[in-house]
Amino acid sequence: MFKQLGLIGCGLMGGSFALAMKQAGLVRRVVGYSKSPSTTERACELGVIDVAAPSALLAVAGADLVLLAVPVAATETTLKSIKHLVTRDMLVMDVGSTKADVAQAARRALGSMASAFVPAHPVTGREVSGVEFADASLYRGCQVVLTPTEHTGDTQLRKAEQLWEALGCQVRQMSPQAHDQAFAAVSHLPHLLAFAFMQSIAGQPEGDAFLALAGPGFRDFTRIAAGEPKMWRDILLTNREQVLEQSQLFQQALHAFEQAMRAGDAQALEDMLTLASGMRTHWRMGVEGATSPTPPQS
Amino acid sequence: MFKQLGLIGCGLMGGSFALAMKQAGLVRRVVGYSKSPSTTERACELGVIDVAAPSALLAVAGADLVLLAVPVAATETTLKSIKHLVTRDMLVMDVGSTKADVAQAARRALGSMASAFVPAHPVTGREVSGVEFADASLYRGCQVVLTPTEHTGDTQLRKAEQLWEALGCQVRQMSPQAHDQAFAAVSHLPHLLAFAFMQSIAGQPEGDAFLALAGPGFRDFTRIAAGEPKMWRDILLTNREQVLEQSQLFQQALHAFEQAMRAGDAQALEDMLTLASGMRTHWRMGVEGATSPTPPQS
Repeated sequence: MFKQLGLIGCGLMGGSFALAMKQAGLVRRVVGYSKSPSTTERACELGVIDVAAPSALLAVAGADLVLLAVPVAATETTLKSIKHLVTRDMLVMDVGSTKADVAQAARRALGSMASAFVPAHPVTGREVSGVEFADASLYRGCQVVLTPTEHTGDTQLRKAEQLWEALGCQVRQMSPQAHDQAFAAVSHLPHLLAFAFMQSIAGQPEGDAFLALAGPGFRDFTRIAAGEPKMWRDILLTNREQVLEQSQLFQQALHAFEQAMRAGDAQALEDMLTLASGMRTHWRMGVEGATSPTPPQS
Repeated sequence: MFKQLGLIGCGLMGGSFALAMKQAGLVRRVVGYSKSPSTTERACELGVIDVAAPSALLAVAGADLVLLAVPVAATETTLKSIKHLVTRDMLVMDVGSTKADVAQAARRALGSMASAFVPAHPVTGREVSGVEFADASLYRGCQVVLTPTEHTGDTQLRKAEQLWEALGCQVRQMSPQAHDQAFAAVSHLPHLLAFAFMQSIAGQPEGDAFLALAGPGFRDFTRIAAGEPKMWRDILLTNREQVLEQSQLFQQALHAFEQAMRAGDAQALEDMLTLASGMRTHWRMGVEGATSPTPPQS
């Protein structure tokens, strides 16, 4: 399908994409670049990329597909550094967790070549980073949200859809703004809460003793708190309005629970717990309307 | 080791205990009682119990080991209903997630026979309930916290330790108060936060659309929000002072994150994220001091 992938950023996300594309027979050659030369070298050794490029620009030379797998805050600088070699026939994508800023960055950095760029967010990840963890199956079965703008080329959008579907993903389209609102709710806020929760334990003198007692509930609840600090710093700052709004709504819900606890109002507490528990019990990943106990007849 | 287990409450926790005891060859006969006759019947059919008792009291008759696996709020009433058949030679335990209230309930309900009672909290569980999910391996490898008081018999405490160790558990002892403080921090508060988070999504018109996009981070973060509403109502009310205190500390930490986001203070945000992420990365279940990146030399 593609002759050459120019991979910019050879970490977990980028490396896994290269391996998945190769395994699916969707690309012939991968030319990779990472900010850290040792990462690029390691990616070569591991067979994640075929050729190491000395710069982002040179990774793009001759490519018909370009993937940016860099922290979201680095998107604009990276696009600027490659724009002289971006052509109308290329498909350029990112894999960032925020999309309004990325879409704007593409417009600013690429100008009239912005038609080549399709903002993409594959909803997957691990709490480890680095090319050593690159895994051809990372994207299989996950959702990929594409957020085209009025500048996005139709051909590129179609190619992007086909590519992710060929990798076994479920593709959705929405506006960058709708994307950022939804992911503030179901991803960015949970991360913020898990980070803040770990911080509040760390701040207590008995913190270490508490943690030694923690069980499987704690393990799962806090798994996302092991996320990469720089990556999450960028996401929380980039999407801060939406995240802060979701945090306010969360705190209102928390205060309602606390109020019922303080008042000893067992019925009110049980009602809220029943709603939350039922909703979570019926939720299924990637299935719309799965949270309603009695889904409407189709 | 034991001739007869009197099991009061044949749900997930009680049923799994009976199966584990049988599988380990630690008990000859299990007499079970559940509030719902259909549960007791099902427990018989599934081989979880050998004989169904028509009351909690009759489940205790002839037993040398009694396990209460009922919601924590039902502990006192249940102990009162069996006290006439509790003897000094018996070992009576519970499996509740709060311990100060349980220890007090035992003293009030059992009086001079309180020496037979050892408050126990096996740190395990599932987000499903009912005897159908009873599993002989539920307790294997988990921590069990025993919270003896000045009334607890030495013989009973020793027997309790041996029993849980024989089931493959790691046994710890602490005061009921220290237990409740620690579990408010690492278990009850995370549950409250996960429940409140689901509630805040439920309260938004776009909630269902958001949930359809949620990925593996959301899945793990909210797993505990599927917990049994009545059980968590009781835990949150029983241990509310400690939980509310932990919730305050959590909200202070959350506000510090929000403040850094509002101020666009990338360095402060990164510092907090680094601390939280490092702590979670180094944490290992059941290992003391595992959260320090450089553990002290022993």
